[in-house]
Amino acid sequence: MQPYKGSRDFYPEDKRIFDWIFSQIRSVAQSHGFEEYDGPLLEPFELYEAKSGSELVNDQLYWFVDRGDRKVAIRPEMTPTLARMVAGRLQELAKPIRWISVPNVWRYERPQKGRLREHWQANIDILGGTGPLADVEILNVLLGIFEKFGAQSSVSIRINNRKLMDFFFNEVLHAETEQKAPLARLIDAKAKLKPEIFEEGLKKLGLDDEKIKSIYRFFDSDLESVQKNYDCDGARELAHLFSVLQKSKSQSGPLPFVFDPSLMRGLDYYTATVFEAFDTSGENPRALCGGGRYDNLIGLFSNQKLSGVGFGLGDVTLRDFLESHKKIPLLAKVPEIFVGLHRDEDYALCEKIAGELRSFGHKVVTPLNVDGFGTQIKEALKCGAQFVVLLGETEIKQGQVLVKDLARNIQEVVEIGDLKNFFSK
Amino acid sequence: MQPYKGSRDFYPEDKRIFDWIFSQIRSVAQSHGFEEYDGPLLEPFELYEAKSGSELVNDQLYWFVDRGDRKVAIRPEMTPTLARMVAGRLQELAKPIRWISVPNVWRYERPQKGRLREHWQANIDILGGTGPLADVEILNVLLGIFEKFGAQSSVSIRINNRKLMDFFFNEVLHAETEQKAPLARLIDAKAKLKPEIFEEGLKKLGLDDEKIKSIYRFFDSDLESVQKNYDCDGARELAHLFSVLQKSKSQSGPLPFVFDPSLMRGLDYYTATVFEAFDTSGENPRALCGGGRYDNLIGLFSNQKLSGVGFGLGDVTLRDFLESHKKIPLLAKVPEIFVGLHRDEDYALCEKIAGELRSFGHKVVTPLNVDGFGTQIKEALKCGAQFVVLLGETEIKQGQVLVKDLARNIQEVVEIGDLKNFFSK
Repeated sequence: MQPYKGSRDFYPEDKRIFDWIFSQIRSVAQSHGFEEYDGPLLEPFELYEAKSGSELVNDQLYWFVDRGDRKVAIRPEMTPTLARMVAGRLQELAKPIRWISVPNVWRYERPQKGRLREHWQANIDILGGTGPLADVEILNVLLGIFEKFGAQSSVSIRINNRKLMDFFFNEVLHAETEQKAPLARLIDAKAKLKPEIFEEGLKKLGLDDEKIKSIYRFFDSDLESVQKNYDCDGARELAHLFSVLQKSKSQSGPLPFVFDPSLMRGLDYYTATVFEAFDTSGENPRALCGGGRYDNLIGLFSNQKLSGVGFGLGDVTLRDFLESHKKIPLLAKVPEIFVGLHRDEDYALCEKIAGELRSFGHKVVTPLNVDGFGTQIKEALKCGAQFVVLLGETEIKQGQVLVKDLARNIQEVVEIGDLKNFFSK
Repeated sequence: MQPYKGSRDFYPEDKRIFDWIFSQIRSVAQSHGFEEYDGPLLEPFELYEAKSGSELVNDQLYWFVDRGDRKVAIRPEMTPTLARMVAGRLQELAKPIRWISVPNVWRYERPQKGRLREHWQANIDILGGTGPLADVEILNVLLGIFEKFGAQSSVSIRINNRKLMDFFFNEVLHAETEQKAPLARLIDAKAKLKPEIFEEGLKKLGLDDEKIKSIYRFFDSDLESVQKNYDCDGARELAHLFSVLQKSKSQSGPLPFVFDPSLMRGLDYYTATVFEAFDTSGENPRALCGGGRYDNLIGLFSNQKLSGVGFGLGDVTLRDFLESHKKIPLLAKVPEIFVGLHRDEDYALCEKIAGELRSFGHKVVTPLNVDGFGTQIKEALKCGAQFVVLLGETEIKQGQVLVKDLARNIQEVVEIGDLKNFFSK
C-alpha cells in the first residue's frame, strides 16, 4: 500500500497545500506577464545525454527502451524540453519569451529530507532578453514569490557570476584544464563539507599553499573588493546587477540579495549570473531554488543563439521551508454546505436546493442515504461542511428550511427562496 | 525538435485551453463537494498486473526495471492508484469519499485522432456509497460538466448494467464460460464494425441462428421491454436509476441519458451500472468518457469491501468535441499592461508603477531595453498587452503618464496616482 520509493501520495489535505503553493507562485509569475507551457513526460534519451551533466545522465536518469526500440527517458529537469520547444518555434515566438511551467521531474536518488525521486518544480525563464534587466526581473520574480508567502525576511538569495569564476580560475589560480571541473565540484560542495575536508580536497587537486590562500582570500571578498582586485567582466556585471536591483525596488528595507563568491551551481550550462536561495534560519540547509543565465540554450537544435535566464523552485524543499516558518495557512476542506435528506419524498427538493446553491458558486454535498437529522449532522461534520440545511417536515410546508451553522452551533429558519442571499453573506 | 511519438508540447495557446477545460471540470466537481488527490507517476508493475485487463498490461503498459531491480510501470490509468491510496487509509477516510484527480496517463498505442500515448484524464469517483444515489450523483456530475461547457444538447450518455448483461449471457444465451469474454469484447467493438463483420464474429464464437436472433432482439429493447422480458436485478436497477435521475433534475427539457443494452465497457472491474458519453453529431465517434460501478475496488489490499462508482474523462477527445461544437472561448494572453521605458533615468519609476499595478492584481510587463515610444508600442502589441503606459518626459514632470488602449487605438493622460482606479474600470 506504500507508494513507489521516493514518490508521494497526495491525499486531499496534502493536495490542498500543494495546489496553494503553486497557485501563489503562478500568480506572481502571471503578474509579471509570464505564460504557462507544458511538455511531455518522456523525451528522447539523447536530449539529456547532450545537455545535462554526466552525473545526472549516468547515475540519476530514469530511462528505458520502448516497444519500438527507442531509448526514452523520464524528464529529470525541464530545461532541455524548454530548449526543444523554443527551438521548434524560434521565428514565431515573440521575444522576450516569459514562460513558466510546473512539471514533475524524476531522479534516481537516495530519498532523504528535502530530496525525493519525484518532485514538482516551478521553472521560470526569460528567453531572448540579453540585457541585465532580464536578470533583474528574474531575481525580482523570485523575491516576489517569497514576498507572496510572507517569507522574504527568512531567505537569502546568494548571487555570483560564472565569468568572475572563470577569471579567478584562469588568471589568478592559473588552473590546468583538468583541474577546473573537479575544483568547481569541490567548491559547489563546500557548504556541506568540514573546512579541513575541503582544504584536503584542494591539496589533492595539486593546489599549493599560495593558491589555497588566494582561494580563501577570494571567498572573503565583498562586492567592492572583488571589483578592485579581480578586474573582469564578471565583476563589473555583478556590480551593475546589484545597483539595478536596488533601484528596481522602491522599498526602503534591506533586500535579501547577497554576493557570494563561493557559489558555483552544479549545472554546466550557466555562463554568467548564477544564484541560489537559502533559508537564513539554518533549519533547511538545502538550496530552495537555483538558477542563472545560460547563453546558448538551443545550440543542440539551431545555429542561432538564444540567451536566457531562469530558475527552478522545487516543492519538497519549499514546503519544508514554509512549514518551518509557519507560512502555510489552514486550508479549508472543500464542501461548505450539506443539504440533508430526511424523507424519500423530499429528494427532488433536496437536489433542487443543492443545484441552486451550486449555481451560485457554493460547494454543496447531498447525502447518499435518507437518514435522521442527527445522523445527517454527523455526516456533515465528518465531510467538513460548515453549514447543514435540514428539510424539516413542518418547515417545508411553509416554504422554509432549518440552517445550522456547525462552527458556531447556532441555527435559524430561512425561507427557501432566501437561501442564496443567506449564504452569500 | 518533435516531441516523443504520441505525446504533445503545450505552447501557451494550447496550455491556456488545457487549463480552461480542466478548471471547468474541477469547478463542477468541487461544487458537488469533491476533493482533489494525486499520486505518483510510477507504480509497482504488480499493481496493474493484478487489476487492469491483460490487453493493457501485455500490449500497452510502459514498464521497465529500475536501478534497484524493481519492476515499475508508468501509470496507464488512475484507478489502481486510487485503490492503493484508499486502502492505505481505509479507516480514517470519511465515507462516502468524493475524490477527483487529473493525472497524465501513458499507453503504448498507435497515435490516431482522439487517441495518443500521453493524455490527461479527469478521474471522478464516489467510494463507499452503496445506494443508487451515488450512481445518480456521478451521472449528474458528468452531465453538469457538459452543461458547464454549454454542450449538454450535443451529448448522449448511454447507460447499461453489467448484471443485466450477465443475466442475458447466462440465462438467455446460456453462453459457455469461454465464450463470454470474447463475446463481451465483440459487443464492445460493435459500433466500430460493419454489421456483417459483427454477425460473422458471432457465428465464429459458435452461436447458432436462434441465439444470434435473440442478441438482436435484446439490443432492440427499450427500458420497458427489458424489464418485462429480462426479469433480473440489472433490469430493476436500471429502471430505478432512470426514475431517480429524472427526479434529481428539476429542468423540464429532455435529459441526455439513454438506455443502451449493447454497451459493455472494456474494463473487467465493473459490476453493475456502466456508462459512456458520445457526441451526438457523429463527428467524434470515440466515447468522450466512460465509467461505472465497481463493487470490490480494494480487494488486492484488504478483506474489507469498498464499493465505488466513477468515470474518466480524457483531454484529447474532449478538446476535439468542444472544438467541433465551437465551445472553446477565445482565451486572452497573459499580460494586460505594458509599462514602457524611454529613458534610463525613468527605470525606478517604471518599476514602481508596474509593481503597484501588480499589487492590485494586474498582469504587467516591463521592457528589458530602453527604447523609443514606437518600438515600445510594437513590443506591447507583440506580447499581447491591451494597454501601454508611456512615461513621456513632459507628462512625468506633472506627475502624469500617457495610457494607450491598443485595442481601441485611443489614448489619454492619466495622473500616476490615479492609474489603479483607471485600470480597475
